[in-house]
Amino acid sequence: MVLLIHHTTSPFARKIRLQMSEKRMLFVLRSEEPWNLSQDVYKLNPAGELPIYLNDGKIISSHYAICEYLEETNPDVPLIFGTPEQKAEIRRMTDWFDNKFYREVYRNIVWEKVHKRFARGQSPDSVTLKAGLNNLGFHFEYIEWLFEKHAYLAGEELSLADLSAGAHISVIDYLGDVPWDEFPLTKLWYSKIKSRPAFKDLLKDTIAGIIPSRNYTNLDF
Amino acid sequence: MVLLIHHTTSPFARKIRLQMSEKRMLFVLRSEEPWNLSQDVYKLNPAGELPIYLNDGKIISSHYAICEYLEETNPDVPLIFGTPEQKAEIRRMTDWFDNKFYREVYRNIVWEKVHKRFARGQSPDSVTLKAGLNNLGFHFEYIEWLFEKHAYLAGEELSLADLSAGAHISVIDYLGDVPWDEFPLTKLWYSKIKSRPAFKDLLKDTIAGIIPSRNYTNLDF
Repeated sequence: MVLLIHHTTSPFARKIRLQMSEKRMLFVLRSEEPWNLSQDVYKLNPAGELPIYLNDGKIISSHYAICEYLEETNPDVPLIFGTPEQKAEIRRMTDWFDNKFYREVYRNIVWEKVHKRFARGQSPDSVTLKAGLNNLGFHFEYIEWLFEKHAYLAGEELSLADLSAGAHISVIDYLGDVPWDEFPLTKLWYSKIKSRPAFKDLLKDTIAGIIPSRNYTNLDF
Repeated sequence: MVLLIHHTTSPFARKIRLQMSEKRMLFVLRSEEPWNLSQDVYKLNPAGELPIYLNDGKIISSHYAICEYLEETNPDVPLIFGTPEQKAEIRRMTDWFDNKFYREVYRNIVWEKVHKRFARGQSPDSVTLKAGLNNLGFHFEYIEWLFEKHAYLAGEELSLADLSAGAHISVIDYLGDVPWDEFPLTKLWYSKIKSRPAFKDLLKDTIAGIIPSRNYTNLDF
Protein backbone atom coordinates (compact mmCIF):
# COMPACT_ATOMS: atom_id res chain seq x y z
CA MET A 1 0.00 0.00 0.00
CA VAL A 2 1.25 3.46 -0.90
CA LEU A 3 1.74 5.99 1.89
CA LEU A 4 1.93 9.64 0.87
CA ILE A 5 3.26 12.13 3.39
CA HIS A 6 1.48 15.34 2.50
CA HIS A 7 -0.20 18.50 3.72
CA THR A 8 -3.50 19.80 2.44
CA THR A 9 -1.95 23.20 1.61
CA SER A 10 0.82 21.59 -0.51
CA PRO A 11 -0.09 21.96 -4.21
CA PHE A 12 2.56 19.36 -5.08
CA ALA A 13 1.01 16.79 -2.74
CA ARG A 14 -2.42 17.63 -4.18
CA LYS A 15 -1.08 17.03 -7.70
CA ILE A 16 0.24 13.58 -6.76
CA ARG A 17 -3.01 12.68 -4.97
CA LEU A 18 -5.01 13.65 -8.07
CA GLN A 19 -2.63 11.69 -10.30
CA MET A 20 -2.90 8.55 -8.13
CA SER A 21 -6.71 8.86 -7.90
CA GLU A 22 -7.06 9.28 -11.67
CA LYS A 23 -4.94 6.13 -12.02
CA ARG A 24 -7.26 4.39 -9.53
CA MET A 25 -4.38 3.65 -7.16
CA LEU A 26 -5.08 3.05 -3.50
CA PHE A 27 -3.09 5.09 -1.00
CA VAL A 28 -3.15 6.33 2.56
CA LEU A 29 -2.15 9.80 3.69
CA ARG A 30 -0.11 11.07 6.59
CA SER A 31 -0.14 14.78 7.22
CA GLU A 32 2.88 16.89 8.22
CA GLU A 33 2.74 20.65 8.75
CA PRO A 34 5.16 22.28 6.28
CA TRP A 35 5.98 24.98 8.86
CA ASN A 36 6.79 22.40 11.53
CA LEU A 37 8.23 19.32 9.81
CA SER A 38 9.28 16.39 11.99
CA GLN A 39 12.80 14.90 11.92
CA ASP A 40 11.23 11.87 10.20
CA VAL A 41 10.56 13.96 7.13
CA TYR A 42 14.18 15.13 6.91
CA LYS A 43 15.35 11.54 7.23
CA LEU A 44 13.12 10.50 4.33
CA ASN A 45 13.82 13.60 2.25
CA PRO A 46 16.86 15.75 3.11
CA ALA A 47 15.32 18.54 0.99
CA GLY A 48 12.64 18.89 3.69
CA GLU A 49 9.86 19.10 1.12
CA LEU A 50 6.46 17.45 0.71
CA PRO A 51 5.13 15.16 -0.65
CA ILE A 52 7.09 11.96 0.01
CA TYR A 53 5.96 8.69 -1.58
CA LEU A 54 6.55 5.42 0.30
CA ASN A 55 5.71 1.96 -0.98
CA ASP A 56 7.14 -1.38 0.07
CA GLY A 57 10.48 0.04 1.21
CA LYS A 58 10.75 2.40 -1.75
CA ILE A 59 11.05 6.09 -0.83
CA ILE A 60 10.65 8.73 -3.52
CA SER A 61 10.73 12.47 -3.05
CA SER A 62 10.60 15.45 -5.47
CA HIS A 63 7.14 15.86 -6.97
CA TYR A 64 8.67 15.82 -10.45
CA ALA A 65 10.38 12.46 -9.80
CA ILE A 66 7.19 11.02 -8.24
CA CYS A 67 5.00 12.10 -11.19
CA GLU A 68 7.29 10.56 -13.79
CA TYR A 69 7.68 7.42 -11.68
CA LEU A 70 3.90 7.00 -11.41
CA GLU A 71 3.52 7.49 -15.17
CA GLU A 72 6.07 4.75 -15.84
CA THR A 73 4.92 2.24 -13.22
CA ASN A 74 1.13 2.77 -13.63
CA PRO A 75 0.69 3.26 -17.37
CA ASP A 76 -2.97 2.12 -17.63
CA VAL A 77 -4.38 5.63 -17.30
CA PRO A 78 -1.69 7.77 -18.97
CA LEU A 79 -1.60 11.44 -18.01
CA ILE A 80 1.46 12.33 -20.13
CA PHE A 81 0.62 10.98 -23.58
CA GLY A 82 0.72 11.50 -27.36
CA THR A 83 3.61 12.41 -29.64
CA PRO A 84 6.88 13.62 -28.09
CA GLU A 85 5.74 17.20 -28.91
CA GLN A 86 2.37 16.68 -27.17
CA LYS A 87 4.15 15.27 -24.14
CA ALA A 88 6.43 18.32 -24.13
CA GLU A 89 3.37 20.60 -24.14
CA ILE A 90 1.84 18.67 -21.20
CA ARG A 91 5.13 18.98 -19.29
CA ARG A 92 5.52 22.67 -20.19
CA MET A 93 2.13 23.51 -18.70
CA THR A 94 2.69 21.23 -15.67
CA ASP A 95 5.96 23.08 -15.07
CA TRP A 96 4.23 26.45 -15.62
CA PHE A 97 2.06 25.84 -12.57
CA ASP A 98 4.66 24.02 -10.46
CA ASN A 99 7.23 26.75 -10.92
CA LYS A 100 5.96 30.02 -12.38
CA PHE A 101 2.46 30.03 -10.85
CA TYR A 102 3.85 28.67 -7.55
CA ARG A 103 6.50 31.41 -7.36
CA GLU A 104 4.42 34.35 -8.60
CA VAL A 105 1.00 33.51 -7.15
CA TYR A 106 0.97 30.68 -4.59
CA ARG A 107 3.88 31.90 -2.47
CA ASN A 108 2.60 35.47 -2.41
CA ILE A 109 -0.93 34.46 -1.39
CA VAL A 110 -0.81 31.14 0.49
CA TRP A 111 2.48 31.75 2.29
CA GLU A 112 1.29 35.17 3.39
CA LYS A 113 -2.16 34.04 4.53
CA VAL A 114 -1.48 30.55 5.87
CA HIS A 115 2.21 29.73 6.45
CA LYS A 116 3.07 33.07 8.10
CA ARG A 117 0.09 32.79 10.41
CA PHE A 118 0.79 29.25 11.62
CA ALA A 119 4.59 29.46 11.53
CA ARG A 120 5.03 32.86 13.16
CA GLY A 121 1.60 34.15 14.19
CA GLN A 122 1.95 37.03 11.73
CA SER A 123 -0.61 38.75 9.49
CA PRO A 124 -0.13 38.82 5.72
CA ASP A 125 1.90 41.65 4.24
CA SER A 126 -0.57 43.63 2.09
CA VAL A 127 1.96 44.56 -0.62
CA THR A 128 3.02 40.93 -1.16
CA LEU A 129 -0.59 39.78 -1.14
CA LYS A 130 -1.57 42.42 -3.69
CA ALA A 131 1.32 41.38 -5.95
CA GLY A 132 0.09 37.77 -5.74
CA LEU A 133 -3.48 38.71 -6.64
CA ASN A 134 -2.25 40.87 -9.50
CA ASN A 135 -0.09 38.01 -10.83
CA LEU A 136 -3.08 35.67 -10.51
CA GLY A 137 -4.89 37.91 -13.01
CA PHE A 138 -2.03 37.66 -15.53
CA HIS A 139 -1.87 33.87 -15.21
CA PHE A 140 -5.63 33.55 -15.63
CA GLU A 141 -5.57 35.79 -18.72
CA TYR A 142 -3.03 33.41 -20.25
CA ILE A 143 -4.97 30.22 -19.51
CA GLU A 144 -8.28 31.85 -20.57
CA TRP A 145 -6.58 32.41 -23.95
CA LEU A 146 -5.47 28.74 -24.03
CA PHE A 147 -9.05 27.61 -23.30
CA GLU A 148 -10.23 29.52 -26.40
CA LYS A 149 -8.11 27.05 -28.37
CA HIS A 150 -8.76 23.76 -26.55
CA ALA A 151 -10.91 22.28 -23.79
CA TYR A 152 -8.03 21.30 -21.47
CA LEU A 153 -4.75 23.01 -20.72
CA ALA A 154 -2.51 21.08 -23.09
CA GLY A 155 -5.09 19.89 -25.65
CA GLU A 156 -8.50 18.29 -25.97
CA GLU A 157 -7.98 15.72 -23.21
CA LEU A 158 -7.30 15.85 -19.49
CA SER A 159 -3.58 15.54 -18.71
CA LEU A 160 -1.12 16.00 -15.86
CA ALA A 161 -1.08 19.74 -16.70
CA ASP A 162 -4.75 20.05 -15.65
CA LEU A 163 -4.06 18.18 -12.42
CA SER A 164 -1.13 20.44 -11.57
CA ALA A 165 -3.13 23.59 -12.39
CA GLY A 166 -6.17 22.30 -10.47
CA ALA A 167 -3.99 21.43 -7.47
CA HIS A 168 -2.51 24.94 -7.25
CA ILE A 169 -5.72 26.80 -8.04
CA SER A 170 -7.74 24.76 -5.51
CA VAL A 171 -5.62 26.05 -2.61
CA ILE A 172 -6.09 29.66 -3.76
CA ASP A 173 -9.81 28.98 -4.19
CA TYR A 174 -10.01 27.62 -0.63
CA LEU A 175 -8.98 31.09 0.52
CA GLY A 176 -11.61 32.69 -1.74
CA ASP A 177 -9.14 34.62 -3.89
CA VAL A 178 -10.13 33.54 -7.41
CA PRO A 179 -12.21 36.08 -9.42
CA TRP A 180 -14.07 33.35 -11.31
CA ASP A 181 -16.60 35.60 -13.05
CA GLU A 182 -13.89 37.46 -14.95
CA PHE A 183 -12.68 34.24 -16.62
CA PRO A 184 -15.68 32.30 -18.01
CA LEU A 185 -13.72 29.66 -19.97
CA THR A 186 -11.38 28.99 -17.06
CA LYS A 187 -14.43 28.69 -14.80
CA LEU A 188 -16.01 26.18 -17.19
CA TRP A 189 -12.79 24.13 -17.23
CA TYR A 190 -12.54 24.21 -13.43
CA SER A 191 -16.17 23.10 -13.04
CA LYS A 192 -15.38 20.05 -15.19
CA ILE A 193 -12.23 19.28 -13.17
CA LYS A 194 -14.07 19.71 -9.89
CA SER A 195 -16.75 17.17 -10.76
CA ARG A 196 -14.21 14.35 -11.25
CA PRO A 197 -14.19 11.72 -8.46
CA ALA A 198 -10.46 12.33 -7.83
CA PHE A 199 -11.12 16.01 -7.18
CA LYS A 200 -14.17 15.49 -4.99
CA ASP A 201 -12.06 13.50 -2.50
CA LEU A 202 -9.46 16.24 -2.38
CA LEU A 203 -12.01 18.96 -1.70
CA LYS A 204 -13.16 17.19 1.47
CA ASP A 205 -9.90 18.32 3.15
CA THR A 206 -9.90 21.34 5.37
CA ILE A 207 -7.07 23.48 6.73
CA ALA A 208 -7.41 23.46 10.54
CA GLY A 209 -8.34 26.96 11.69
CA ILE A 210 -9.33 28.33 8.25
CA ILE A 211 -12.88 28.01 6.89
CA PRO A 212 -12.98 27.34 3.12
CA SER A 213 -14.62 29.88 0.81
CA ARG A 214 -18.24 29.24 -0.21
CA ASN A 215 -17.12 28.33 -3.73
CA TYR A 216 -14.56 25.75 -2.65
CA THR A 217 -16.59 22.53 -2.83
CA ASN A 218 -19.56 23.95 -4.73
CA LEU A 219 -19.87 22.47 -8.22
CA ASP A 220 -22.17 25.33 -9.29
CA PHE A 221 -20.01 28.33 -8.30
CA MET B 1 19.37 21.83 -37.15
CA VAL B 2 18.53 22.60 -33.54
CA LEU B 3 18.63 26.24 -32.41
CA LEU B 4 18.84 26.86 -28.67
CA ILE B 5 18.06 30.34 -27.39
CA HIS B 6 20.18 30.62 -24.27
CA HIS B 7 22.36 32.82 -22.09
CA THR B 8 25.67 31.78 -20.65
CA THR B 9 24.52 32.63 -17.10
CA SER B 10 21.40 30.42 -17.40
CA PRO B 11 22.03 27.12 -15.58
CA PHE B 12 19.00 25.62 -17.32
CA ALA B 13 20.40 26.45 -20.76
CA ARG B 14 23.77 25.05 -19.66
CA LYS B 15 22.07 21.81 -18.60
CA ILE B 16 20.39 21.40 -22.01
CA ARG B 17 23.63 22.21 -23.84
CA LEU B 18 25.47 19.55 -21.81
CA GLN B 19 22.68 17.05 -22.44
CA MET B 20 22.72 17.67 -26.20
CA SER B 21 26.53 17.51 -26.34
CA GLU B 22 26.62 14.23 -24.39
CA LYS B 23 24.07 12.90 -26.91
CA ARG B 24 26.35 14.12 -29.72
CA MET B 25 23.61 16.31 -31.16
CA LEU B 26 24.53 19.27 -33.33
CA PHE B 27 23.04 22.62 -32.39
CA VAL B 28 23.56 26.33 -32.80
CA LEU B 29 23.14 28.93 -30.06
CA ARG B 30 21.51 32.34 -30.00
CA SER B 31 22.10 34.45 -26.93
CA GLU B 32 19.47 36.62 -25.20
CA GLU B 33 20.14 38.63 -22.06
CA PRO B 34 17.76 37.39 -19.32
CA TRP B 35 17.53 40.96 -17.91
CA ASN B 36 16.61 42.38 -21.32
CA LEU B 37 14.64 39.75 -23.24
CA SER B 38 13.39 40.64 -26.73
CA GLN B 39 9.72 40.41 -27.74
CA ASP B 40 10.73 37.41 -29.88
CA VAL B 41 11.42 35.43 -26.72
CA TYR B 42 7.98 36.20 -25.27
CA LYS B 43 6.36 35.15 -28.55
CA LEU B 44 8.18 31.81 -28.45
CA ASN B 45 7.74 31.31 -24.69
CA PRO B 46 5.10 33.38 -22.88
CA ALA B 47 6.80 32.42 -19.58
CA GLY B 48 9.73 34.65 -20.65
CA GLU B 49 12.28 32.05 -19.60
CA LEU B 50 15.39 30.56 -21.19
CA PRO B 51 16.28 28.20 -22.78
CA ILE B 52 13.99 27.72 -25.78
CA TYR B 53 14.53 24.79 -28.15
CA LEU B 54 13.67 25.20 -31.84
CA ASN B 55 13.94 22.51 -34.48
CA ASP B 56 12.20 22.26 -37.82
CA GLY B 57 9.17 24.31 -36.74
CA LYS B 58 8.95 22.66 -33.32
CA ILE B 59 9.22 25.06 -30.38
CA ILE B 60 9.75 23.67 -26.89
CA SER B 61 10.19 25.65 -23.71
CA SER B 62 10.51 24.70 -20.02
CA HIS B 63 13.87 23.07 -19.28
CA TYR B 64 12.04 20.12 -17.71
CA ALA B 65 9.97 19.53 -20.87
CA ILE B 66 13.06 19.93 -23.10
CA CYS B 67 15.13 17.42 -21.04
CA GLU B 68 12.45 14.74 -21.12
CA TYR B 69 11.82 15.40 -24.84
CA LEU B 70 15.52 14.96 -25.64
CA GLU B 71 15.64 11.73 -23.63
CA GLU B 72 12.72 10.33 -25.59
CA THR B 73 13.74 11.50 -29.07
CA ASN B 74 17.51 10.85 -28.72
CA PRO B 75 17.71 7.63 -26.73
CA ASP B 76 21.14 6.45 -27.95
CA VAL B 77 23.03 8.02 -25.04
CA PRO B 78 20.51 7.75 -22.18
CA LEU B 79 20.99 10.15 -19.28
CA ILE B 80 17.91 9.01 -17.32
CA PHE B 81 18.27 5.22 -17.14
CA GLY B 82 17.93 2.05 -15.05
CA THR B 83 14.99 0.76 -13.01
CA PRO B 84 12.04 3.09 -12.31
CA GLU B 85 13.57 3.69 -8.84
CA GLN B 86 16.98 4.59 -10.32
CA LYS B 87 15.29 6.99 -12.74
CA ALA B 88 13.44 8.55 -9.80
CA GLU B 89 16.76 9.09 -8.01
CA ILE B 90 18.27 10.73 -11.12
CA ARG B 91 15.22 13.01 -11.39
CA ARG B 92 15.24 13.79 -7.65
CA MET B 93 18.83 15.03 -7.81
CA THR B 94 18.24 16.88 -11.09
CA ASP B 95 15.28 18.62 -9.42
CA TRP B 96 17.39 19.29 -6.31
CA PHE B 97 19.72 21.50 -8.34
CA ASP B 98 17.11 22.99 -10.65
CA ASN B 99 14.88 24.05 -7.77
CA LYS B 100 16.44 23.91 -4.33
CA PHE B 101 20.02 24.85 -5.26
CA TYR B 102 18.75 27.42 -7.77
CA ARG B 103 16.52 29.10 -5.16
CA GLU B 104 18.87 28.92 -2.17
CA VAL B 105 22.25 29.42 -3.83
CA TYR B 106 22.10 30.54 -7.47
CA ARG B 107 19.57 33.36 -7.02
CA ASN B 108 21.33 34.72 -3.95
CA ILE B 109 24.75 34.75 -5.59
CA VAL B 110 24.36 35.08 -9.37
CA TRP B 111 21.33 37.39 -9.32
CA GLU B 112 23.05 39.64 -6.82
CA LYS B 113 26.41 39.74 -8.61
CA VAL B 114 25.39 39.59 -12.27
CA HIS B 115 21.67 40.24 -12.94
CA LYS B 116 21.41 43.24 -10.58
CA ARG B 117 24.50 44.82 -12.06
CA PHE B 118 23.44 44.50 -15.70
CA ALA B 119 19.71 45.02 -15.15
CA ARG B 120 19.85 47.97 -12.77
CA GLY B 121 23.50 48.98 -12.34
CA GLN B 122 23.35 48.01 -8.65
CA SER B 123 25.92 46.37 -6.38
CA PRO B 124 25.14 43.06 -4.65
CA ASP B 125 23.39 43.17 -1.29
CA SER B 126 25.91 41.75 1.19
CA VAL B 127 23.30 40.02 3.41
CA THR B 128 21.73 38.17 0.46
CA LEU B 129 25.16 37.23 -0.90
CA LYS B 130 26.26 35.90 2.49
CA ALA B 131 23.08 33.81 2.77
CA GLY B 132 23.81 32.34 -0.68
CA LEU B 133 27.41 31.46 0.25
CA ASN B 134 26.24 29.95 3.53
CA ASN B 135 23.61 27.84 1.71
CA LEU B 136 26.28 26.76 -0.79
CA GLY B 137 28.16 25.20 2.13
CA PHE B 138 25.09 23.20 3.23
CA HIS B 139 24.45 21.93 -0.30
CA PHE B 140 28.08 20.92 -0.73
CA GLU B 141 28.06 19.07 2.61
CA TYR B 142 25.12 17.05 1.34
CA ILE B 143 26.67 16.15 -2.01
CA GLU B 144 30.05 15.43 -0.38
CA TRP B 145 28.18 12.84 1.71
CA LEU B 146 26.59 11.39 -1.47
CA PHE B 147 30.03 11.10 -3.10
CA GLU B 148 31.19 8.95 -0.17
CA LYS B 149 28.62 6.43 -1.36
CA HIS B 150 28.97 6.60 -5.16
CA ALA B 151 31.12 8.21 -7.85
CA TYR B 152 28.34 10.26 -9.47
CA LEU B 153 25.38 12.08 -7.96
CA ALA B 154 22.73 9.43 -8.51
CA GLY B 155 24.90 6.30 -8.71
CA GLU B 156 28.04 4.89 -10.31
CA GLU B 157 27.41 6.40 -13.74
CA LEU B 158 27.07 9.89 -15.15
CA SER B 159 23.41 10.96 -15.44
CA LEU B 160 21.29 14.04 -16.05
CA ALA B 161 21.67 14.83 -12.33
CA ASP B 162 25.42 15.42 -12.80
CA LEU B 163 24.79 17.65 -15.80
CA SER B 164 22.26 19.73 -13.88
CA ALA B 165 24.57 20.04 -10.87
CA GLY B 166 27.56 20.83 -13.10
CA ALA B 167 25.54 23.46 -14.98
CA HIS B 168 24.56 25.31 -11.80
CA ILE B 169 27.93 24.95 -10.06
CA SER B 170 29.85 26.12 -13.14
CA VAL B 171 28.17 29.54 -13.04
CA ILE B 172 29.01 29.95 -9.34
CA ASP B 173 32.58 28.79 -10.08
CA TYR B 174 32.88 31.39 -12.85
CA LEU B 175 32.42 34.00 -10.13
CA GLY B 176 35.05 32.29 -7.95
CA ASP B 177 32.68 31.49 -5.07
CA VAL B 178 33.22 27.73 -4.63
CA PRO B 179 35.45 26.71 -1.66
CA TRP B 180 36.77 23.62 -3.47
CA ASP B 181 39.43 22.66 -0.92
CA GLU B 182 36.82 22.06 1.80
CA PHE B 183 35.07 19.39 -0.28
CA PRO B 184 37.66 16.94 -1.71
CA LEU B 185 35.21 14.35 -3.07
CA THR B 186 33.05 16.99 -4.72
CA LYS B 187 36.21 18.49 -6.20
CA LEU B 188 37.23 15.10 -7.58
CA TRP B 189 33.77 14.63 -9.14
CA TYR B 190 33.87 18.12 -10.66
CA SER B 191 37.33 17.55 -12.14
CA LYS B 192 35.96 14.43 -13.91
CA ILE B 193 32.91 16.34 -15.18
CA LYS B 194 35.07 19.23 -16.34
CA SER B 195 37.30 17.05 -18.49
CA ARG B 196 34.37 15.78 -20.59
CA PRO B 197 34.27 17.21 -24.16
CA ALA B 198 30.70 18.51 -23.56
CA PHE B 199 31.89 20.54 -20.58
CA LYS B 200 35.02 21.88 -22.26
CA ASP B 201 32.89 23.57 -24.92
CA LEU B 202 30.69 25.17 -22.29
CA LEU B 203 33.63 26.56 -20.35
CA LYS B 204 34.78 28.54 -23.40
CA ASP B 205 31.86 30.95 -22.83
CA THR B 206 32.44 34.21 -21.06
CA ILE B 207 30.04 36.69 -19.47
CA ALA B 208 30.71 40.07 -21.14
CA GLY B 209 32.16 42.44 -18.56
CA ILE B 210 33.05 39.78 -15.97
CA ILE B 211 36.40 37.95 -15.96
CA PRO B 212 36.09 34.26 -14.95
CA SER B 213 37.86 33.02 -11.81
CA ARG B 214 41.27 31.37 -12.27
CA ASN B 215 39.74 27.96 -11.50
CA TYR B 216 36.96 28.19 -14.06
CA THR B 217 38.52 26.45 -17.05
CA ASN B 218 41.48 24.93 -15.20
CA LEU B 219 41.32 21.12 -15.06
CA ASP B 220 43.86 21.05 -12.24
CA PHE B 221 42.24 23.44 -9.77
